Amino acid sequence: MAQSPYQQLEQEFRRVHAFRTAASILRWDSAVMMPRGSSDLRGEQLAALETEAHALVTSPRVSRLLDRADANAQGLEDWQVANLREMRRERDHAIATPHNLVSRLAKATSRAEVRWLEAKQKSDFSLFAPHLEEVVNLTRNKASFLGKALNLTPYDALIDEFSPGLTTKEIDSIFTTLGRRLPGLIQDVIDGQAARPPLDLSGRITPSKQRQIAVDIMKTIGFPFDRGRIDESEHPFTGGAPGDIRITTRFIPTDPLSGLMGVLHETGHAMYDLGLPEAWRGQPVGRDRGMAVQESQSLLLEMFICRNRPFLRYLRPLLEKIGGVSGPEWEVENLYRVLTRVRRSLIRVDADEITYTMHIILRHELEKELLLGELKIKDLPEAWNSRIHDRLGVRPSNDAEGCLQDVHWAVGSFGYFPSYSIGAVIAAQLYESLRSDRPELDEEIAAGHFAGLFDWLRQNIYRHGAMLSTPELIQNATGKPLSAAAWVRYAEGKYLAD
Amino acid sequence: MAQSPYQQLEQEFRRVHAFRTAASILRWDSAVMMPRGSSDLRGEQLAALETEAHALVTSPRVSRLLDRADANAQGLEDWQVANLREMRRERDHAIATPHNLVSRLAKATSRAEVRWLEAKQKSDFSLFAPHLEEVVNLTRNKASFLGKALNLTPYDALIDEFSPGLTTKEIDSIFTTLGRRLPGLIQDVIDGQAARPPLDLSGRITPSKQRQIAVDIMKTIGFPFDRGRIDESEHPFTGGAPGDIRITTRFIPTDPLSGLMGVLHETGHAMYDLGLPEAWRGQPVGRDRGMAVQESQSLLLEMFICRNRPFLRYLRPLLEKIGGVSGPEWEVENLYRVLTRVRRSLIRVDADEITYTMHIILRHELEKELLLGELKIKDLPEAWNSRIHDRLGVRPSNDAEGCLQDVHWAVGSFGYFPSYSIGAVIAAQLYESLRSDRPELDEEIAAGHFAGLFDWLRQNIYRHGAMLSTPELIQNATGKPLSAAAWVRYAEGKYLAD
Repeated sequence: MAQSPYQQLEQEFRRVHAFRTAASILRWDSAVMMPRGSSDLRGEQLAALETEAHALVTSPRVSRLLDRADANAQGLEDWQVANLREMRRERDHAIATPHNLVSRLAKATSRAEVRWLEAKQKSDFSLFAPHLEEVVNLTRNKASFLGKALNLTPYDALIDEFSPGLTTKEIDSIFTTLGRRLPGLIQDVIDGQAARPPLDLSGRITPSKQRQIAVDIMKTIGFPFDRGRIDESEHPFTGGAPGDIRITTRFIPTDPLSGLMGVLHETGHAMYDLGLPEAWRGQPVGRDRGMAVQESQSLLLEMFICRNRPFLRYLRPLLEKIGGVSGPEWEVENLYRVLTRVRRSLIRVDADEITYTMHIILRHELEKELLLGELKIKDLPEAWNSRIHDRLGVRPSNDAEGCLQDVHWAVGSFGYFPSYSIGAVIAAQLYESLRSDRPELDEEIAAGHFAGLFDWLRQNIYRHGAMLSTPELIQNATGKPLSAAAWVRYAEGKYLAD
Repeated sequence: MAQSPYQQLEQEFRRVHAFRTAASILRWDSAVMMPRGSSDLRGEQLAALETEAHALVTSPRVSRLLDRADANAQGLEDWQVANLREMRRERDHAIATPHNLVSRLAKATSRAEVRWLEAKQKSDFSLFAPHLEEVVNLTRNKASFLGKALNLTPYDALIDEFSPGLTTKEIDSIFTTLGRRLPGLIQDVIDGQAARPPLDLSGRITPSKQRQIAVDIMKTIGFPFDRGRIDESEHPFTGGAPGDIRITTRFIPTDPLSGLMGVLHETGHAMYDLGLPEAWRGQPVGRDRGMAVQESQSLLLEMFICRNRPFLRYLRPLLEKIGGVSGPEWEVENLYRVLTRVRRSLIRVDADEITYTMHIILRHELEKELLLGELKIKDLPEAWNSRIHDRLGVRPSNDAEGCLQDVHWAVGSFGYFPSYSIGAVIAAQLYESLRSDRPELDEEIAAGHFAGLFDWLRQNIYRHGAMLSTPELIQNATGKPLSAAAWVRYAEGKYLAD
């Protein structure tokens, strides 16, 4: 029997999925396994796979099939209708930017990334400035094309690539609330914590024992080691694809909990990926709902569940039994203080969950101004330094700990930064609903029972894949529109309570 | 400036290379890293990559460009002309078999491989027979299409896939000589060795120390660890691609040298791949010259160089220093006896280099008869058992150690088996020329100096890539046509001398 246009589209996007997941495994391999000198060949492989996936999505055949499927949508199920919408969304995003601009951006970001690393190592912004300028100019063009195609403002179009359905309006409203509340909160928390500083975790746990503890917890959580792995890499990430999920972390002998916290963060991502509807796998509607929701899942597990007392009651005996450590510094209360320490610091990736948002607000402001041309490239270092000082009371002594610290802009990821903090805000709102639906949560976590937590997430987040937009998904899960309120309640409750 | 048809072809084949090497890394990953439950997704990824590479090679665009490039070949260099010939060769092979038959074969072999494993585990040929029948029938069709397209006999067309330019005529002539000489040789060697049995290597070397020894030797040989890896897998193989070569082996605590011999075998393959001309990389003419030459390189290093006294003089101190073993059984002469022991045995992959060829001659005979319909599938087990008994004096007690031991036929690899023994014959002929050109070879190897060996191989084999056919390459390197004579001299000299 001849296949319907919709069925043919499913086949095409299944092939796209095969190319993309192959590329994802190869990127994992690059970070974890590949010999250092093999990056040229890998670059050619990834370019071939990504070009092919892009060619498939933007092919005239897919566009024709989309039109024909839309015209014959009456027999389709709801998820298939949503799948068509997501296919069109992908096609629209992929086709909006002229091929020539895509190619210029790829070359410019590839050059800029190399020069960024060099500039960061030498702490010399001038080496990076002309490359950033080129990337900003090209990104501005791209945003303008995308915005026209998607009927969004240019910056919103960039955000939409990462967190579908989210707009500057919502982000600015949330960031305004947080930006107003944070300075006082940070001061209060730091003052409070100064009165009861934690004991240092001086006992060492070898990386192999840290790994054993992490794997033990992942098994308890339900990470499927027959369809996933954990390895080490310089920067922790979640790679692969559902069916073959690969998380990485870094175990440091002198910092016995940072590797574990990295594992829990990535496991939050992985559980989301693994919980996506199996029946929709390989289809656009079967994917996660973008970076803000992804980040909500990693933060929910790491920050909300695990950097919290019930989890630490469960963790402590494991640290003793497997890690072989003991003493007052390993008591639950001290672990809690260590893991919730708030500090004014310069580096985003090392920041605690309270000051982190300040780092993000700064980047969000600056990247909008750069794209609008309101801030000149040459003025970026000073703008960065003075504003981080205004916000956090610390001033970078060089650009490596200032505006050169992140790779995002070099690789053209404008509109990405907000998803970190919007993810935290989503996590707080979900956590509030979760606790209200499941009053026994703390006891369950303390007993090492994670099934209730993940059932709730499966029910309210995972199983929806990309059916709903980001705001709809949150409204649907919590009964409320996305707002900063839950995060403020959470932060105050957790950090000012004792 | 517009690209010439030839330049456009180079670009197309570069993309083919990117897809194929990506698939090669993913196959390595499947064997070494992938979680067991992830094979479905991996199957989709590999199918997408292989389909794409096949589609590129067989595209009308490539055929048009080939015709236009052939018509404008006057400005091309020699290697580019050879590259055009190899491109056409690839296209001809790929296009000869109708798409429908390719797809039926893929499905049949995929089913047959699963049933073969089951049949082998249960030692029940009847479970496998109908699937083998289907694969043989489809392969017969394929061979007939290929033969017509390439102007070869059907079986020669299959051989040409694996070892370009080699034909049944040469193989049969070589195998007739060997088949006549081997029974007496085997008897004489076994009688001679019975008089001086080796001491058992009872001392154990842990896998991690075995690995250290292997890596030490690989470094000395010149394996580039910045563009290659060694790992463990159930079946040793060489994967990846030049620029990112990945060899595997298996280290067994109770068998301290088998893992190392596996490493040396695979390093022989890897050094060939790595020595292929860099300037031709990614092009058909830049590839190796097929399976027989590949096998000659692995056997030359493992059997001819390393299972030999000069290498063992170099190895022994490493075994003592890194492996921590000592005693009379670790003396050079005893190691040599252990590593050159000849036994009449049933399993090809465990066979020594002398009886191995008997296993291959048997398979070559049987697969020709199966394809010609002279041997019925149902009669295969008895034909196998009685002929291996006639040839080697041993009789399988079940089909698992008889006609079910190899996967090759299940996956449709007919015409592959000869390349193992033709590889040994090539190795012997190269080794004879090498020793004559380089009388100091034994001293160099005993001193751990491998540069002379690999310079000779680079000069005579590696640098030619796929410029010459298999027979031309050997004629060119040794000044003689391929024949069994050097192998017989080698075997007699090595195994009957003392």
